[in-house]
Amino acid sequence: MIKKLIDEIIKKDAPIVAGLDPMLSFIPEYLKKRSFEEYGQTLEGVADAIWRFNMQIIDAISDLVPAVKPQVAMYEQFGIPGLETYVKTIKYAKEKGLIVVADVKRGDIGSTSAAYATAHLGKIVIDRNEIEPFGSDFATVNPYLGTDGIKPFVDACNEFDKGIFVLVKTSNPSSGEFQDRSIDGKPLYEHVAEKVVEWGSASMNGTYSNVGAVVGATYPEVGEKLRKLMPNTYILVPGYGAQGGKGKDLKVFFNNDGLGALVNSSRGIIAAYKQEEYKKFGDTGFADAARAAVLAMKKDIKEGAF
Amino acid sequence: MIKKLIDEIIKKDAPIVAGLDPMLSFIPEYLKKRSFEEYGQTLEGVADAIWRFNMQIIDAISDLVPAVKPQVAMYEQFGIPGLETYVKTIKYAKEKGLIVVADVKRGDIGSTSAAYATAHLGKIVIDRNEIEPFGSDFATVNPYLGTDGIKPFVDACNEFDKGIFVLVKTSNPSSGEFQDRSIDGKPLYEHVAEKVVEWGSASMNGTYSNVGAVVGATYPEVGEKLRKLMPNTYILVPGYGAQGGKGKDLKVFFNNDGLGALVNSSRGIIAAYKQEEYKKFGDTGFADAARAAVLAMKKDIKEGAF
Repeated sequence: MIKKLIDEIIKKDAPIVAGLDPMLSFIPEYLKKRSFEEYGQTLEGVADAIWRFNMQIIDAISDLVPAVKPQVAMYEQFGIPGLETYVKTIKYAKEKGLIVVADVKRGDIGSTSAAYATAHLGKIVIDRNEIEPFGSDFATVNPYLGTDGIKPFVDACNEFDKGIFVLVKTSNPSSGEFQDRSIDGKPLYEHVAEKVVEWGSASMNGTYSNVGAVVGATYPEVGEKLRKLMPNTYILVPGYGAQGGKGKDLKVFFNNDGLGALVNSSRGIIAAYKQEEYKKFGDTGFADAARAAVLAMKKDIKEGAF
Repeated sequence: MIKKLIDEIIKKDAPIVAGLDPMLSFIPEYLKKRSFEEYGQTLEGVADAIWRFNMQIIDAISDLVPAVKPQVAMYEQFGIPGLETYVKTIKYAKEKGLIVVADVKRGDIGSTSAAYATAHLGKIVIDRNEIEPFGSDFATVNPYLGTDGIKPFVDACNEFDKGIFVLVKTSNPSSGEFQDRSIDGKPLYEHVAEKVVEWGSASMNGTYSNVGAVVGATYPEVGEKLRKLMPNTYILVPGYGAQGGKGKDLKVFFNNDGLGALVNSSRGIIAAYKQEEYKKFGDTGFADAARAAVLAMKKDIKEGAF
C-alpha cells in the first residue's frame, strides 16, 4: 500500500494528507440549519451536517491531494450516527480516488489488536461472506503495548495490502513527558523508532515499508534525527499549520529522493474559511477556501522543504 | 464514580469485572444460526447473535458482579452493527444495575482526547440538547501522549462523575518492551504510575481517585510495587484466568482495607462453557456456565488473595 501512496503523491505532486476532523464549530451554520430542520437537534442531525460538509470538502480537493485522514474521535463523539458518517466518508473518499488514513490510534494486547486490525484494515469472515467493516487503507497505531500489540496490524498490512503509522514522537506539547525520557542514553522515541524499523522489515513494499511512523512537525530537530534512523520508513507528519509547524520545518522529514514524508493539515484546510486570509470565500465558500488552503500549503512545502 | 464502584464491590462482595469480549468463536452455533436465519450471514446477523449472547450473560451474572467491561474492539470489528450492539449492551448492563467499564484504550492529543472523553464518558451538546453518545461509567486510556492527552478525560471524570483506568503495566507478553525500560533508575511504568497519582489527585472521590490504573495480573511482582506507589489508586487487573493469572497472584494488588483492585476475567467467564470444567452446561447453558465461573472466580480470589 505504501507504493500506491507514493505513486499518488508523485502523480499529484503533493506530499499532503488532508485531515477530516470536523469539529461541530467548523461546520457552517447554514449547513447545520438544513440538517437540523430535517433531523432535529440530534446526533443524526449533526452527522448529516458533517456528511454534507465532508462531501463538499472531498469534491473540492480530491484532484489536489493523494489522501485524506479522518480522525475517528471526531465521529465517535456523535455516537452511532457519527460513525455512520465516518463509514460513508471513507467510502466516498475512496470512490474519488483518495487513499484513506484512519486516524484511530488503536493498540491493545494481541487478540484485541487483531480485532482492531480487522475492523479498520481487514475483512471479517462470516462463513463464506467476507465483509470490510471500515475499509481504510492505513491506520495509526499506538506502540505502548509492544510487539504483540503491533504484529496483528503488520499481518493485516501483508494480508490485505494496507499500511500503518506507529506513534513515535507525537506533535502535542506534553509528548516529551514519556517519549523524550532517556533510556540507555537515548530517548524512548528512538527505541520505538528502532522497533518500527524492525516491524517494518516484515512488510516492505518497494523502497519503503508499509509500517510508517508518526513524528510531529512541531519537533523538527527530532524529525531530523528520526529521518536518518528510519531511512525506509514513511513519516506521517501532523502538527503543520494550526499546531505551529511551517513549511521550512518540514525539510528534515524528507529523504533525498524527495519522498518519505506525508504532511497532515486538518483545521488549516477544512476550517480555512474561518481564517482572516480566506474570509472572502464566506461560509458558503468553505470548500473553495479549503482548496485555496491546500494550494497555499503545497506552495509553502515546495518552497520551504525542497 | 470510584466511590459508587467501591460501594457495589462491597455490596456484592466481589472485586470482579466481567469482560464482555464476544469473539465470534465464543457464540454458540444455535444462537448464530437463529440470527443468521433472520439477518443473513451479515454484520447485522453477527451483531444480533452477540446481542442475544450478551443479554443472557448479563442476566446470569448481574447479581454477582459489580461491573462489566465490554472490549470495544470486539464490536468495532463488526462495523456499525457491531457498535450498535455495543451501545445496546452498555444500556442493558446499566439497566441491570451494573457499572460499565468501556475498554477502549483511547488517547490522543488534547482536542482529540476531549472528543473521545465526550464520546465515552460525557455528553455532546447540540444547542439545548444534551446527548450521551456511549454513556459508559469508566474508560481505559493510553498514556503515551502524556498529560495533555489525559487531562480531558480527568475533566470528564469531574464534570460527569466518571472514572478512567490508565494503562501502566499491561498484561501481555511483550508489555515490557517499552514499559519495563529503565529511566533514571526505574522502569517507565513507575514514571507513568507517578503521573497517574498526580493526575488522580485532581479527581479524588473518597479515599480513592477516579483516575485508576491498569496493571496486569500476569506481573504480580510489578503489581506489588505499584500497589505501594499508588496507595489511593484503584487498579484494574486484567490477565486473570485465560491469560495465566491466579487468585494467589492477586493478593498484592489489594490494599489492607481489602479494596484497591478490580479483577477482570473475560473469556474465562463468557466462554466458560467451552472449558472442560463447565462442559456439562452444554452450548445452551453458556450463561449458567458463566455464572458458575464467576462463583468459582470469587472463591479463588477470596481464598488466594485475602
